[in-house]
Amino acid sequence: MSFDAVDVIRTKRDRGELSDGQIDWVIDAYTRGAVADEQMSSLAMAILLNGMTRREIARWTAAMIASGERMDFAKLSRPTADKHSTGGVGDKITLPLAPLVAACGVAVPQLSGRGLGHTGGTLDKLESIPGWRAALSNTELMNQLEDVGAVICAAGDGLAPADKKLYALRDVTGTVEAIPLIASSIMSKKIAEGTGALVLDVKVGTGAFMKDLGDARELAETMVALGTDAGVRTVALLTDMSTPLGLTAGNALEVRESLEVLAGGGPADVVELTVALAAEMLAAAGVTGVDPAEKLRDGSAMDVWRRMIAAQDGDPDAELPVAPEQHVVKAESTGVLSRLDALAVGVAAWRLGAGRARKEDPVSPVAGIELHAKPGDEVTAGQPLLTLHADDASRFERALESLADAVDIGTPYEAQQLIIDRITA
Amino acid sequence: MSFDAVDVIRTKRDRGELSDGQIDWVIDAYTRGAVADEQMSSLAMAILLNGMTRREIARWTAAMIASGERMDFAKLSRPTADKHSTGGVGDKITLPLAPLVAACGVAVPQLSGRGLGHTGGTLDKLESIPGWRAALSNTELMNQLEDVGAVICAAGDGLAPADKKLYALRDVTGTVEAIPLIASSIMSKKIAEGTGALVLDVKVGTGAFMKDLGDARELAETMVALGTDAGVRTVALLTDMSTPLGLTAGNALEVRESLEVLAGGGPADVVELTVALAAEMLAAAGVTGVDPAEKLRDGSAMDVWRRMIAAQDGDPDAELPVAPEQHVVKAESTGVLSRLDALAVGVAAWRLGAGRARKEDPVSPVAGIELHAKPGDEVTAGQPLLTLHADDASRFERALESLADAVDIGTPYEAQQLIIDRITA
Repeated sequence: MSFDAVDVIRTKRDRGELSDGQIDWVIDAYTRGAVADEQMSSLAMAILLNGMTRREIARWTAAMIASGERMDFAKLSRPTADKHSTGGVGDKITLPLAPLVAACGVAVPQLSGRGLGHTGGTLDKLESIPGWRAALSNTELMNQLEDVGAVICAAGDGLAPADKKLYALRDVTGTVEAIPLIASSIMSKKIAEGTGALVLDVKVGTGAFMKDLGDARELAETMVALGTDAGVRTVALLTDMSTPLGLTAGNALEVRESLEVLAGGGPADVVELTVALAAEMLAAAGVTGVDPAEKLRDGSAMDVWRRMIAAQDGDPDAELPVAPEQHVVKAESTGVLSRLDALAVGVAAWRLGAGRARKEDPVSPVAGIELHAKPGDEVTAGQPLLTLHADDASRFERALESLADAVDIGTPYEAQQLIIDRITA
Repeated sequence: MSFDAVDVIRTKRDRGELSDGQIDWVIDAYTRGAVADEQMSSLAMAILLNGMTRREIARWTAAMIASGERMDFAKLSRPTADKHSTGGVGDKITLPLAPLVAACGVAVPQLSGRGLGHTGGTLDKLESIPGWRAALSNTELMNQLEDVGAVICAAGDGLAPADKKLYALRDVTGTVEAIPLIASSIMSKKIAEGTGALVLDVKVGTGAFMKDLGDARELAETMVALGTDAGVRTVALLTDMSTPLGLTAGNALEVRESLEVLAGGGPADVVELTVALAAEMLAAAGVTGVDPAEKLRDGSAMDVWRRMIAAQDGDPDAELPVAPEQHVVKAESTGVLSRLDALAVGVAAWRLGAGRARKEDPVSPVAGIELHAKPGDEVTAGQPLLTLHADDASRFERALESLADAVDIGTPYEAQQLIIDRITA
């Protein structure tokens, strides 16, 4: 059956509900190039402003899955579970989490992306390890999943090509911030990937995509429903992103901190979230009676990490690179550090070179920010608060600009729970 | 000053007001190709759904004018006045109106377009006259205005090129129906054209672009304000388009009817509207003491018509072409013709070949519909109501489909005023 692009756009523009046929047609026709970019972008804006019903979102997601290949992990000897984070500052959780969950007996196929804007990309972080490569063939992926149990690699071009095209379009047309489009983008890739269980880390706060708890909750509920309806056991945690996770933001800096966690140490918040997400992944995969915290302490998660890195040609014993230029920011007064803003730190790390403004930009492995205190800590005037890392000292000025209003000391401090809520089907 | 397209889109998406700098930049960058079609279309959808203030619309219009050349009629020996209709079925008014107003001493530079969809285009109508050509150079236009006083020709590419590009984009992206964009599109061309006075015929009803009186009034008020602010004496009439104007819809058919009006006859509604618009144009141009109805009766309007057609290589004495195929639709019952729907007649005429679906399609000079009765007339079962004209009898079936529900006989009839309201600054 054939439809007309302008009719589809008008339906949504005039607050109507798109039919299954309209959705299937417009996604397929857009992927083939029969619906033009300028038509899809006006439709995306109409979706952003007028919304979509759950039925429309589910069909839209299914149509994007149908645009490409689906993977199948059914032949693996163990269950699979995947995690997706909506992105935050200092969010290195995937790095310790994937080997940890594998050490508990659940295979983790973590197909990841690169960073764009102020949140770091998992692949960018791992590429600071000498030799490590992100691109795997499907056969390599399957073999590594079976042998090691954990893979973090680049998502292939075959999964949900409609989403790939639409995501790039939304990025330049001011239509990224549409919950139906965000949810279907994430879930089409995760469902096509073929994982049996999925745990979503939906971040909320200044450093997150969702600044507002209500929006984050709506996104989480939408994605949990999409996954559940598609036969993927899906659960979401709403977690705080008002301040960076852990004490580092940057590529090699975050790998180093992840190694501390895998060695049984590391910052309390990173450990707490890693263990909580691991427990959710194990439960969703049907594995009981394993304590993930113990697998961090006894070194078995670290063992999987070393094998996972080596399987992708990385050297787990190599020295990580260190920035040639550093600049210390000191506390201006004495008192409780009551605020350390995630967005400001993320933008500063990005300006230091840790992230990219455009897809084709390179990133610096060494650039980033170390935190010497977290909200709630007592600080003393003159003590180091942050250390900025860069390849080039000329980067410091613009990074410092973004940090100008990032810190409060001595104003009323209200402790923020890291895990705000848990959303199930 | 430079802006970012995504920032401009987000401003409007989030219900903000675009700054003068943002508007100037986005129109200029779009015209140059630095803002992509897919960016402009998502902005257009955001404008359609979130609206624009009068200040934004005025600036948007000014930016579109600034994208191209401006004409100047100040050197002419008489004042100028122009008319614009928002388009309707059977709306041939420009044809008798331009020579009539010229016969009253006001020069009429009528830069027109071609039809798209169910409303006919003035140039398409005139092209049914053997030899007549629509394209004039600026010099030819000026000379004809001075010598004859009336020109109906194609608008050159130099006027408001931003509008030309944006109009084509809106057509395929479901963003035509945005009052700020309609108003700025019309007024940018009319202001750039350099007329001293402008009368707008804003149509309302099933056969019009605006189905709703409130929308039509808003469009009229917006355009009158834009014209007035730009120094053009502007007035608008809101006129009925629930039923076709006159007794013909189609190219040569409408030329024939226009000749009847110029000969002092013709359908009462066409004469009424032609004379009313002429009076408004004369008043706006500052000419008093001339009765346009008299200039129809005494043949002086017809004299100008003949000179106007001949000046553009048309033969005013040539036989107009006639359709080889005709099909009569008869009244099914006896009583008052209480409804004859403009949209249904317009779509039927279009399907008969009088209009085009795509810009590059040809139109038939002979296709169209003759009406043998108008709402309010008594009709008798079996009498001819409509005659369909086409090049090919295979066209009748789909035309008749669009007429299936076009006629009511004997239901309560409420007379509709042709001129509903008059809007001034």
